Amino acid sequence: MNREELFEQVKKKESYLCVGLDTDFSKIPRHLLKCDDPVFEFNRQIIDATKDFAVAYKPNLAFYECLGPKGLESLAKTVKYIPENIFTIADAKRGDIGNTSQMYAKTFFEHYNFDSVTVAPYMGEDSVTPFLGFKNKWVILLALTSNPGAEDFQKSEIRNPKSGIGKMYGDVIAASMKWGTADNMMYVVGATQASMFSEIRTIVPGHFLLVPGVGAQGGSLSEVSKYGMNGNCGLLVNSSRQIIYASAGEDFAEKAGMEAKKVRREMKTYLDEFVK
Amino acid sequence: MNREELFEQVKKKESYLCVGLDTDFSKIPRHLLKCDDPVFEFNRQIIDATKDFAVAYKPNLAFYECLGPKGLESLAKTVKYIPENIFTIADAKRGDIGNTSQMYAKTFFEHYNFDSVTVAPYMGEDSVTPFLGFKNKWVILLALTSNPGAEDFQKSEIRNPKSGIGKMYGDVIAASMKWGTADNMMYVVGATQASMFSEIRTIVPGHFLLVPGVGAQGGSLSEVSKYGMNGNCGLLVNSSRQIIYASAGEDFAEKAGMEAKKVRREMKTYLDEFVK
Repeated sequence: MNREELFEQVKKKESYLCVGLDTDFSKIPRHLLKCDDPVFEFNRQIIDATKDFAVAYKPNLAFYECLGPKGLESLAKTVKYIPENIFTIADAKRGDIGNTSQMYAKTFFEHYNFDSVTVAPYMGEDSVTPFLGFKNKWVILLALTSNPGAEDFQKSEIRNPKSGIGKMYGDVIAASMKWGTADNMMYVVGATQASMFSEIRTIVPGHFLLVPGVGAQGGSLSEVSKYGMNGNCGLLVNSSRQIIYASAGEDFAEKAGMEAKKVRREMKTYLDEFVK
Repeated sequence: MNREELFEQVKKKESYLCVGLDTDFSKIPRHLLKCDDPVFEFNRQIIDATKDFAVAYKPNLAFYECLGPKGLESLAKTVKYIPENIFTIADAKRGDIGNTSQMYAKTFFEHYNFDSVTVAPYMGEDSVTPFLGFKNKWVILLALTSNPGAEDFQKSEIRNPKSGIGKMYGDVIAASMKWGTADNMMYVVGATQASMFSEIRTIVPGHFLLVPGVGAQGGSLSEVSKYGMNGNCGLLVNSSRQIIYASAGEDFAEKAGMEAKKVRREMKTYLDEFVK
């Protein structure tokens, strides 16, 4: 999916919601456990219930890998089931030396047919660029994450011979902008970092940002939207637990749909306010 | 496996060789393609031929994931096949928010029963510590990698309010030393960075270092051993392509064994020279 198509979906659905399919086997409602593939069945029903309110789905690989090869089967079926016009994100946080990153890229873009994959920047340019050579596929690079550990290295003060003193996450964004464009790169910026969005928008005015951390992690959708939106929306705001575990009963999908609809309603007000 | 047991193996085998099982389907000798599981069959023969000369095996996950669920089956069979007294490394470079890293840790330590997993430090403390709560299991944290991209962020000059000016990789090592100990943490330091080993040894005199980049990537075993060894050896030096693709013919395993034996012979001289 390309940037224009993504923005079209945002306008059509009046939403920039990404639903995180972090499907924890231990939290799947009991009545689904008798199915052949409870993880896929859970996802299928969540997708059916939320697809009118979401523009993206983001399965986190950890939740599938922990079930062994069978978990990857559930993942493959899930990605296939997601409607064509919804953006898919492999939240895998990969990154390795060039020839190895190339294999990861093929895995997520060709084998599973994801639109995008999250990538960790620590190993630098040749660990990221192999993901950028696929048409209409995206790298979503970790910049400033939503967890407490974001303080440890991402906010380290660095001295860059070219750009002077700044923070590590700013340097990651500035350096990587030369590797890709707003048409094949996005950045992860956590919702818990709302005060940083204005500054980040001065570095990357045009790029989409993937924003985790709203909901269970405590970030504010209102703040993120106010400081993070651009003229093409420029945000995909993720919610996982708040939506997919809205109920632990037989009504889990219905409740997930209601929760997604509620988030969409709030998002519509910000789109009306901030996007022309 | 604990640190004493690992050092025992080093002394017994007179080797600190780690064989990288980066088994690329397209490079498997043709005569194996008729097997049920060519990847496992290749690994099995490589293991049989090299196990007397190696103290560790390191499959890189990318090479298995790219084959889909079937690749993970080959991986599981490979890990099971590796003899009990040989250290196993899941080269996965994972790292995510706390509850997600916990799932990755269970995947590699419990589901696959690896001794260790490589972890990327960018997301900080709560992305690493979930891997440290497993008895006799290890985190191998990326510090200074062997690829060109190591220049981009790992060598950035940072100003740490406590420790003053230094490089990012030094800060990663110094900070993470408070999260684990030399009994459950190692660091990745690329062989192409030989001149950095002395300095790194001043920060972590006692820890094991996992050293990729000898062979195809151009690092020198002699330099790495001279500057990186400590009294307990303290090194696992990885070689992948140079050993497992020593021949593309039916004699691939025999040639891999000869190559591993050659590396072991050189390692023995450094052990004699530098380890009391």
